[in-house]
Amino acid sequence: MPSPSYFEDFEVGTFQEFGEYKVTEKEIIDFAEKFDPQPFHLSEEAGQAMHFGGLCASGWHTCSMAMRMIVEHMPKENNGALGSPGIDEIRWKKPVFPGDVLRMRSTILDKKPSRSRADMGTIFMLNELFNQNDEVVMTNKPIVMVKKRSRIS
Amino acid sequence: MPSPSYFEDFEVGTFQEFGEYKVTEKEIIDFAEKFDPQPFHLSEEAGQAMHFGGLCASGWHTCSMAMRMIVEHMPKENNGALGSPGIDEIRWKKPVFPGDVLRMRSTILDKKPSRSRADMGTIFMLNELFNQNDEVVMTNKPIVMVKKRSRIS
Repeated sequence: MPSPSYFEDFEVGTFQEFGEYKVTEKEIIDFAEKFDPQPFHLSEEAGQAMHFGGLCASGWHTCSMAMRMIVEHMPKENNGALGSPGIDEIRWKKPVFPGDVLRMRSTILDKKPSRSRADMGTIFMLNELFNQNDEVVMTNKPIVMVKKRSRIS
Repeated sequence: MPSPSYFEDFEVGTFQEFGEYKVTEKEIIDFAEKFDPQPFHLSEEAGQAMHFGGLCASGWHTCSMAMRMIVEHMPKENNGALGSPGIDEIRWKKPVFPGDVLRMRSTILDKKPSRSRADMGTIFMLNELFNQNDEVVMTNKPIVMVKKRSRIS
């Protein structure tokens, strides 16, 4: 089942699990070369010299992989997503390594109708990203704006 | 002047300004195709149909561009950066458009020695990302672990 589309469809306290993202060494290095060229994101040797224990993904890469999983899980039509004003918290809890397979659990923490716009509302989410060993590698708490199904004029 | 290297060098309340990042349409679309393929990050037409007013960068792309600016500003040698356990808040305040030129102001909000590790400490930052019109397009609040210059054994 894809994620809910419209404000009315989101039920506080419910969650969905989805996604399978295979992390590759090439993608970790490509991302790091463009956006986060710290040594431990560029080579196995430099990663081993740190507490990470090996080459690991930039935290921003991990957030971006999680976003890809979310977008793939969105409904293809009648999608009420209006973008996001921000994230309340990110925690990078474990390194993400080449060969990891990631999955997501996305929980609806709260929802609020907009005060100024009758046709939209705000959803507060908790995303938990797991690796293949069921370890939480990252959590984040996005704030998402969505359309209402029924406009109140 | 590059950013401070070691825990002792960070002075609470001080800030640095740096960076110049030219945002291109190609990079916005490349990033979105890989990680955030929502229509308003993929085409001018879809962006115009939203409140954004045109093609704009994924928020995760904006965070990644900011990271690139931070890494380029880090000292090339004797760099005490040990990675980050997370971000306390991200706010995407304005869309980032093709042709924008971004710059960063990075302020040291607080610092705390580690309780468990005598050789490191934690720095709390506020990053403000501006466009060429001096509008804040994004803020975030990273938590950064850094080495101490003098190890206490």
